Amino acid sequence: MVKTGRPGGERSLIESIRRRAAGRDTRRGSTSEVRLGIGDDCALIRPRAGEELAITTDFTLENVHFRRDWHPPESVGHRCLARGLSDLAAMGARPVAALLSLAVPRELTLASGKTRSWVDRFLDGFLALAAEHRVTLIGGDTAQSAASGPGNEGLVHADVVLLGGVKRGRALLRSGASAGDILYVTASPATAQGAARGKPTYPAATAAADRGGLGGSAAELLALRHDPQAFQRLIRTAPDHPHLYPHPRVAAGIALLRLATAAIDLSDGLSTDLGHLCEESRLSAELDAIPIHPLARHAETAGITPSALDLALHGGEDYELLFTASSGTAIPAKIAGVAIHRIGEMKPRRRGVPMLRVRDRGRLVPLQPKGWEHFTS
Amino acid sequence: MVKTGRPGGERSLIESIRRRAAGRDTRRGSTSEVRLGIGDDCALIRPRAGEELAITTDFTLENVHFRRDWHPPESVGHRCLARGLSDLAAMGARPVAALLSLAVPRELTLASGKTRSWVDRFLDGFLALAAEHRVTLIGGDTAQSAASGPGNEGLVHADVVLLGGVKRGRALLRSGASAGDILYVTASPATAQGAARGKPTYPAATAAADRGGLGGSAAELLALRHDPQAFQRLIRTAPDHPHLYPHPRVAAGIALLRLATAAIDLSDGLSTDLGHLCEESRLSAELDAIPIHPLARHAETAGITPSALDLALHGGEDYELLFTASSGTAIPAKIAGVAIHRIGEMKPRRRGVPMLRVRDRGRLVPLQPKGWEHFTS
Repeated sequence: MVKTGRPGGERSLIESIRRRAAGRDTRRGSTSEVRLGIGDDCALIRPRAGEELAITTDFTLENVHFRRDWHPPESVGHRCLARGLSDLAAMGARPVAALLSLAVPRELTLASGKTRSWVDRFLDGFLALAAEHRVTLIGGDTAQSAASGPGNEGLVHADVVLLGGVKRGRALLRSGASAGDILYVTASPATAQGAARGKPTYPAATAAADRGGLGGSAAELLALRHDPQAFQRLIRTAPDHPHLYPHPRVAAGIALLRLATAAIDLSDGLSTDLGHLCEESRLSAELDAIPIHPLARHAETAGITPSALDLALHGGEDYELLFTASSGTAIPAKIAGVAIHRIGEMKPRRRGVPMLRVRDRGRLVPLQPKGWEHFTS
Repeated sequence: MVKTGRPGGERSLIESIRRRAAGRDTRRGSTSEVRLGIGDDCALIRPRAGEELAITTDFTLENVHFRRDWHPPESVGHRCLARGLSDLAAMGARPVAALLSLAVPRELTLASGKTRSWVDRFLDGFLALAAEHRVTLIGGDTAQSAASGPGNEGLVHADVVLLGGVKRGRALLRSGASAGDILYVTASPATAQGAARGKPTYPAATAAADRGGLGGSAAELLALRHDPQAFQRLIRTAPDHPHLYPHPRVAAGIALLRLATAAIDLSDGLSTDLGHLCEESRLSAELDAIPIHPLARHAETAGITPSALDLALHGGEDYELLFTASSGTAIPAKIAGVAIHRIGEMKPRRRGVPMLRVRDRGRLVPLQPKGWEHFTS
């Protein structure tokens, strides 16, 4: 809206992203699929022979998906890419390329002394995860955030598009489950993941209980919200950060193409995402064994939450995969290095019977979806 | 961040978009290229044989790209899709599908009495333009805008991804021009475009001067900013709205695949976008005849701007195509129904000679790019 004509500004932010992306192989023809990257009106992608493209886009909004005073910029960059990678994983698609649209207040583009800018640290997190999954940054958009009132500089808004390759007609869908299929989730022990990186582990009691589970992200967020300063001390010793640095299960998703009948990623919480899977497959589900993340147990012990199980059932953003497989399919204990947990079974949908039920001391009780919902005040 | 578990909300906004998109052919397998639309973790696209995919994404931010008190919701929806369509046009790509990410304050999702909600009217504009260009809405994301301070409900943020099909290795690039190529822009008389829709025309004097031109969008924006109420009266009689309802030159772009050597769309202003084309082609350019939109002339006459020519040179968002063709290529007066204007010539880049020059009363004077720039205060 405002034409200024001065140098620098948006152009230099774009150039900085382009330069950093180029250092990580974002250039013309850098892979056989990316025919043209950043720098023209569009990027060009040529899928491999026999493949089609999976596409997903996710918002990351300040004060909705993160808070600048809670989340390090590297975590924000990591998380906004992880969301789309997890969507690709749920379809069994191999990540190929990403587009990053980023609107930030001007102050966040500025370095101060030896401290790098918020945007630079955001890109550190984004590009590190992109490199890990061989994702090429091929485009996007930038803007300066608008103030929404006097005395503020506006908020950070990111929108990330992920493109993946998957064999034609073979992508895992939410709608592919049949009655009688077994329900599984991925979830590796955090202690194992930490140990693999040489990070310290949880105390012995917690570690012993850790066979991997759900609710870790919600528990970490609660700890962050409960006492940000105590959290900052904890953060240095925890082996893994399911909320700040989730691991999208990309390799497991690809391996599941041969094994699963349906899949969805756990972004909104098990109860909500299982509801989506049931609706799309026109089935109901019975849960009997929910693996709980050690951080969720820890949050219950510490009195931060009344119920670790509730975090596992309804806490969002675990970014694990929920999938179904025929009861005749042998599912290994680990897939692509990630532990697999059997949690229940798909059933025909019957009038008068709740879509979701969970076994509680031998009895099946209805389970209401209680995951993430915007637009409810 | 906040788990509430109440019904309605984001889910119902998604469902409403899904339902409205479905009414316009956004369903599984609705075209041979769209294999899966809204409703799973990703959408699936299968390019036609011999084609690759062009991809672009554009932000539309309240108070940066539009103002809620100036732009009707239908215009905001139209414009945020038009930006990406224009990018596809500049590559010569045929539009296939779009993803819409939309964050809005809750109040904008609510109808009041017989007045439809802002979001519904936004979708009217978005889906009407999508239907005109046979674009299938295949996914996106939604969120409730966060307040950035006390007493406000947050701002509208949209991010639109466009996907198009183009023959492998044939897309028009910014980098394809050669020295000696002729420079052209598309721009049809607004009066002709209005007449085709049965709209009233401009007064005879203005209409007579109208051979189509640039700067119309900037002029309409200035009129809107100058006196919104007078503008509201004008709006009903104007034959065309280059700012509120631009026409992305999609069919012309596809036709240019056979004729042009390079192309870019005019989103940031002629001087800035020509600068991009020169940089990517490593050339300079001389302009000699700039067609001026009648609204820009009108704005000069009315004293709203000191120079109609400045609006044509530096005003952004015309969404016309700027392209080059070999001097031996015969370029018709109209392509796909849109008038074509010869505006200059590409030259080798020489040390000490400005990249852009424009002929002013016989003399070549340097032209500084002065288009849209965020991040300059």
